[in-house]
Amino acid sequence: MIQCTRAATYDRHVPAAETPGPTGELLAQISDDGGVEFARPDRPLIRADDRAVVRGDAVFETLRAAGGRLDNESAHLDRLEGSAAAMGLPVPDRAAWTELARQVTAAWGARSEGMLRLVYSRGVEDSGRPTCLAMMSSVPESTLRHRRDGVRVVTLARGLAAADHADAPWLLVGAKTTSYAVNMAAQRHARAIGADDAIFLATDGQVLEAPTATVVWAVGKTLCTPPVEAGILDGTAVRALFRRAPEHGLSTDIRRAWVADLHAADGVWLTSSVRGAVVVTAIDGQVRGDAGLTPRVQSAAGL
Amino acid sequence: MIQCTRAATYDRHVPAAETPGPTGELLAQISDDGGVEFARPDRPLIRADDRAVVRGDAVFETLRAAGGRLDNESAHLDRLEGSAAAMGLPVPDRAAWTELARQVTAAWGARSEGMLRLVYSRGVEDSGRPTCLAMMSSVPESTLRHRRDGVRVVTLARGLAAADHADAPWLLVGAKTTSYAVNMAAQRHARAIGADDAIFLATDGQVLEAPTATVVWAVGKTLCTPPVEAGILDGTAVRALFRRAPEHGLSTDIRRAWVADLHAADGVWLTSSVRGAVVVTAIDGQVRGDAGLTPRVQSAAGL
Repeated sequence: MIQCTRAATYDRHVPAAETPGPTGELLAQISDDGGVEFARPDRPLIRADDRAVVRGDAVFETLRAAGGRLDNESAHLDRLEGSAAAMGLPVPDRAAWTELARQVTAAWGARSEGMLRLVYSRGVEDSGRPTCLAMMSSVPESTLRHRRDGVRVVTLARGLAAADHADAPWLLVGAKTTSYAVNMAAQRHARAIGADDAIFLATDGQVLEAPTATVVWAVGKTLCTPPVEAGILDGTAVRALFRRAPEHGLSTDIRRAWVADLHAADGVWLTSSVRGAVVVTAIDGQVRGDAGLTPRVQSAAGL
Repeated sequence: MIQCTRAATYDRHVPAAETPGPTGELLAQISDDGGVEFARPDRPLIRADDRAVVRGDAVFETLRAAGGRLDNESAHLDRLEGSAAAMGLPVPDRAAWTELARQVTAAWGARSEGMLRLVYSRGVEDSGRPTCLAMMSSVPESTLRHRRDGVRVVTLARGLAAADHADAPWLLVGAKTTSYAVNMAAQRHARAIGADDAIFLATDGQVLEAPTATVVWAVGKTLCTPPVEAGILDGTAVRALFRRAPEHGLSTDIRRAWVADLHAADGVWLTSSVRGAVVVTAIDGQVRGDAGLTPRVQSAAGL
């Protein structure tokens, strides 16, 4: 079923593994027949009336590629399926997505780390044919800086109650949609006031998540993160971190927290697939430490 | 500054005015030099790494074209500017947008009603060049049906408090962004449970807005709508309706409401640019009347 007639041809045009660096980019899509079709990243691929463009009506995943492999690939594809179900999108063709991710990762090569984005949109209006994309690009400079220097965060009201929104599926809580305008605006606001990133709080002050990451904090040698029932995304990076934490002498716990808990914690990190675990060096202007735990947390995060 | 070398050529390919109907569509963009550039609507125009695609990081407007003219054009362009400012997008080039809208409307012609969508996206990542689109298409069949038959609505929790979010600009309340996944999910949910559309309620039960329309209700001969300070979009259609209401023997008022107020009202309508004022025939399964006001309200709405 998987055809990839154009993949090899395209590889010759952009041999990413031979030309690593910030300008490298790979683009491919699942074609109508379920095959993988590479495209020139600098050429338009999406119609203006694609629902992703006009209505943010799409779901996505961002994965880390390193050494020619994708981290936590099946967890990301599982979540893509969950997001699609929440959005009433057709069930993604798992074999086609797996092959798409595999071919783009193979074309990217093993020598440089990459950021793979999968986008699954409802497609052109009334067409009934979803758009299925994979884009590989270099890890942004800001990501490298955050890994190295950590991030100063500000807490921002999300305007939502911390609640299990399972009885309100139209709110799409837990679905990773491309309707990220508020997430992006929160990060812009954070930067505008001299921070690097944000942590969203519920109306009762409860800690939710960062715009593009999960919040993790340490109480002694226990890593904690809020429950997805607080109304947050099920983070793939935090899952991987928690799975490996015991090997690094750390226990884990799922618990609700308020800002005071973060201030009182021994360390606070933001975990996401490409940044890994970045240490929070200040919250709302209050500088904080990490009890020397960051190297161990980053190792457990697999980065 | 405005160049439109390709507009005339394209008009000859798709003479929309000669071929009205559901398949008619026109697409144009503001080119790098500020001119108007027509494109084939069935060809990809957007790069996969456009922020509109990957992050719903764009604003939009939907206008009604009739008789070769756009309804409330300057109000829509004003709101586009406001949305852009809220999103930290570059100030839109008003002259270029006006010319874009003018040329697409002229190419569409006067014989058939059209729906013009303007999309202003942050553009390709790190390019610093926004994407500026105009798409004209026929009025959807569902819109015609809603105008004729009205809509049955269900009230759905929006998860947000009714509040002036001016102190939380990152929430983008009042900005018409393309991050509409929740709006679309609410309409899907409404249809799934046998209704046609939804009305969002705040956490205190206060009436907010519909996913793509403003809520208007009548108390006697007074048309009412919630204040934008409730955390809703500033509707261009309701503004036009309220401006013309006195000529039709109707007074107007801005006031907060709860579902009970809608049930007790003499009529309830959803107002939006292309649908106009559509009468609400049922709320949460409770059938309701309009005191015979709908023809007058629709006349005042200019449709």
